[in-house]
Amino acid sequence: MRPMSQDDATLDALTQAERVRRGEVTPAELVDAAIARIEKRNAELGAVILPRFEAAREEAASADLPDGPLRGVPFLLKDLGAHGPGDPCHNGMRVLKEAAWTEPSETHFAARLRRAGLICLGRTNTPELGLLPTTEPDAYPPTRNPWNPDHSSGGSSGGSAAAVAAGMVAIAHASDGGGSIRIPAAHCGLVGLKPTRARSSFGPDLGERWGGFSVEGFVTRSVRDTATLLDVVAGPEPGDPYAAITPERPFRDEVGADPGRLRIGFLARAPRGGDVHAECRRAVELAAAALGELGHTVEEDHPAALDDPQAVGAFLTVLTSNEAFTLDKWGERLGRALTERDVEPLTWAVAQLGRQHSAAKLLAAIDWNQAFSRRVAAWWSPPDGARGFDLLLTPTTGEPAPPLGEFAPKPDNPLHGFGRAAAFSMFTAPFNVTGQPGISLPLHESAEGLPVGVQLVAPAGREDVLLRVAAQLEEARPWRERRPPLHV
Amino acid sequence: MRPMSQDDATLDALTQAERVRRGEVTPAELVDAAIARIEKRNAELGAVILPRFEAAREEAASADLPDGPLRGVPFLLKDLGAHGPGDPCHNGMRVLKEAAWTEPSETHFAARLRRAGLICLGRTNTPELGLLPTTEPDAYPPTRNPWNPDHSSGGSSGGSAAAVAAGMVAIAHASDGGGSIRIPAAHCGLVGLKPTRARSSFGPDLGERWGGFSVEGFVTRSVRDTATLLDVVAGPEPGDPYAAITPERPFRDEVGADPGRLRIGFLARAPRGGDVHAECRRAVELAAAALGELGHTVEEDHPAALDDPQAVGAFLTVLTSNEAFTLDKWGERLGRALTERDVEPLTWAVAQLGRQHSAAKLLAAIDWNQAFSRRVAAWWSPPDGARGFDLLLTPTTGEPAPPLGEFAPKPDNPLHGFGRAAAFSMFTAPFNVTGQPGISLPLHESAEGLPVGVQLVAPAGREDVLLRVAAQLEEARPWRERRPPLHV
Repeated sequence: MRPMSQDDATLDALTQAERVRRGEVTPAELVDAAIARIEKRNAELGAVILPRFEAAREEAASADLPDGPLRGVPFLLKDLGAHGPGDPCHNGMRVLKEAAWTEPSETHFAARLRRAGLICLGRTNTPELGLLPTTEPDAYPPTRNPWNPDHSSGGSSGGSAAAVAAGMVAIAHASDGGGSIRIPAAHCGLVGLKPTRARSSFGPDLGERWGGFSVEGFVTRSVRDTATLLDVVAGPEPGDPYAAITPERPFRDEVGADPGRLRIGFLARAPRGGDVHAECRRAVELAAAALGELGHTVEEDHPAALDDPQAVGAFLTVLTSNEAFTLDKWGERLGRALTERDVEPLTWAVAQLGRQHSAAKLLAAIDWNQAFSRRVAAWWSPPDGARGFDLLLTPTTGEPAPPLGEFAPKPDNPLHGFGRAAAFSMFTAPFNVTGQPGISLPLHESAEGLPVGVQLVAPAGREDVLLRVAAQLEEARPWRERRPPLHV
Repeated sequence: MRPMSQDDATLDALTQAERVRRGEVTPAELVDAAIARIEKRNAELGAVILPRFEAAREEAASADLPDGPLRGVPFLLKDLGAHGPGDPCHNGMRVLKEAAWTEPSETHFAARLRRAGLICLGRTNTPELGLLPTTEPDAYPPTRNPWNPDHSSGGSSGGSAAAVAAGMVAIAHASDGGGSIRIPAAHCGLVGLKPTRARSSFGPDLGERWGGFSVEGFVTRSVRDTATLLDVVAGPEPGDPYAAITPERPFRDEVGADPGRLRIGFLARAPRGGDVHAECRRAVELAAAALGELGHTVEEDHPAALDDPQAVGAFLTVLTSNEAFTLDKWGERLGRALTERDVEPLTWAVAQLGRQHSAAKLLAAIDWNQAFSRRVAAWWSPPDGARGFDLLLTPTTGEPAPPLGEFAPKPDNPLHGFGRAAAFSMFTAPFNVTGQPGISLPLHESAEGLPVGVQLVAPAGREDVLLRVAAQLEEARPWRERRPPLHV
């Protein structure tokens, strides 16, 4: 036996699991080392808000630790969505923190991770109800970016991304309703896959989230960890409202598999016109060149529907309606209707927008979004049977990680953060509407030393293509040796 | 070559296709014979409202007739949903009939049927927007039941069911948002499978219908025709919002496959208490006995959630909201807002109910329905890992086919038909909410000579189990020799 050294903080989850299997390290040692790494940096970074260190140590030492593919590997859950039985769950809400809210049950998603042998060390920071691409809730100190602590870690899975980027754990749960996996992955230099709609279950708590925009997923350092985790959580559970297209083989098998010569279109300006930050454009140019070197055909082209100016309104009608409903539901669960004083000004303002919508208007927006999805899909599968594209390449975000504080409400405009968010979600949110999978890869770094991500997008159900190409890029342009200044 | 005789009116679609393949009959002969059968009985029955006989004859004679598994077999489309390019589409609406509305495009569903070699002879009658379990729109004469022309053929796929039951065609398109395949199948003595949510695409017109309650399907005389047609239309199309669980092999292979010894629960009283018609109860008792003889374990048991009194309200919130949106959309397509004078009193009243709902209330109903779906699914898959049931057996409807006129609005109550509909949809509608597949089988006949159906329900994605057991019952209790008085 050999205890983990600090160097082991860059090992991916599969390597850790392999060492456990070989008897080179015990789950208890992995857990202790990860806790030590969290304790070293968390006060600076604000990544982990709800530790469960003692429970994790007990699980690591238990003879009942499940013998799954990731046995003994420590990880973190985002404090929004998946949870174990009795877990505190605050969703970035001060009102839930003050109520010391806990969830009695275990989600199917968390149960699958547990049965894979993973050990949860705690829950990570998130903006209130996951509404922003930064992690600065009123309820907790902001999560800082390990590459520059004055900058945002992204959001809404910013706590998870900072923890993984800083080397606290190799993998962490994340979720994405408008870019919340991909944006923090881009800002923190990680792999962030948003799977196809309904790839995994929200049960037993929910059937869907944000009207189907949101999915559960992860931030990781290696593509193979992302593929392995997707295998663990993929597949429907009884009572789910609908499913994703079933993969033909395990996603893990895609890593290293030949993707063939693909036709890849790229978009390096903002949807609906306008420029993006030069470093984000540069990231796409570099990725396009790398893909070309790998033998793919890369051309400047993208689904024309992405430029439709109505897309923003239809997205927001669904999102704001869902926030109104979500506040209603929390009021019911708490036993009293929430007021303006219970939530952040942005949250209240978003919900108030949603309260203006009739059911018929919401259904019209859903109908519009479903038509939009078909128009977008036609770029991959033209209705006339012509050859379409295999992948779309874009910047993940329109700007690198901004300084903290940029999303704070203005005295005269509680919705200021939502407007500012557009620069970060413009490339990601359309694929929450369509339900297509997208992956952010850490292929570039700005002159200021901030990671810059690029996004690859595939047709619904085709995470396999994303993973094959992501693994190619990981080998051609490896990022695993890069470490942020605030690494553990 | 041998032209079809009137006896051939009982051949199923696969037998017809086989005769075409063998050169025993031509597609043109099949089409001519079916047209002759329609012309013989349609004035009495009111099943086919929009014939396309000349186009069908041309397609049958064309060298371009696709060489699919059902090459040369005539069929009918329901006048709601699927359509070919340029087809008139009235959806049971007088306003669309008067506008001579046509649809420019071809739906994916219709295209798959065309590519399977099927030849469409026209479109069948439906109540306005498919809202009732009877087919008596103001726009067209009522569809009469071939077993007794004073009685309803069911709805909303009543035109299709009457056509198939009378022997005009072997198979016809149908669709089901609350029972609209299963109810007319039960009333007319046919096989009617409502597939799993999203089993086939609504594209390119729509992503979903009735908030995911509705699915496309068929009414047929043989189980193997239903299985074959399901193979033809199953599978996602680009841009669909979500998918159904993929089957492991073609559905056609399930017909004749051993289902094993299943655990089947039956429900012979009304959900939420109350009695059902003695003939419907009797149908379940006979089916339970037949299933027992086949080696299955049959016991009186059902998902407790079916008795939840809130289920009706949550269903209606979704349905009425969708009707409000649907009238808005037709107003947009027609270029003027629809008024009370444009639609039937029931349609207007239903939409007015929907206009009262906020987006947040609709989302609360959707959330409730998704939680309900998990509670229902737990009967099949208990969360504690105990053995659940394989199938639920119920009456398809609470009463046999009622006399025509029973659903007409009352002067003081335009919603009368909706209240009356509950007796017919109480066993079917819950599975539109959950998205599970259900099949109605013609296992009984009332003392008055009206067919009475039983419904089998499986977990989401498990049409395979339904088809295996339905084929067993078809062999054990064959219905193929039974013919209605108004047979062709």
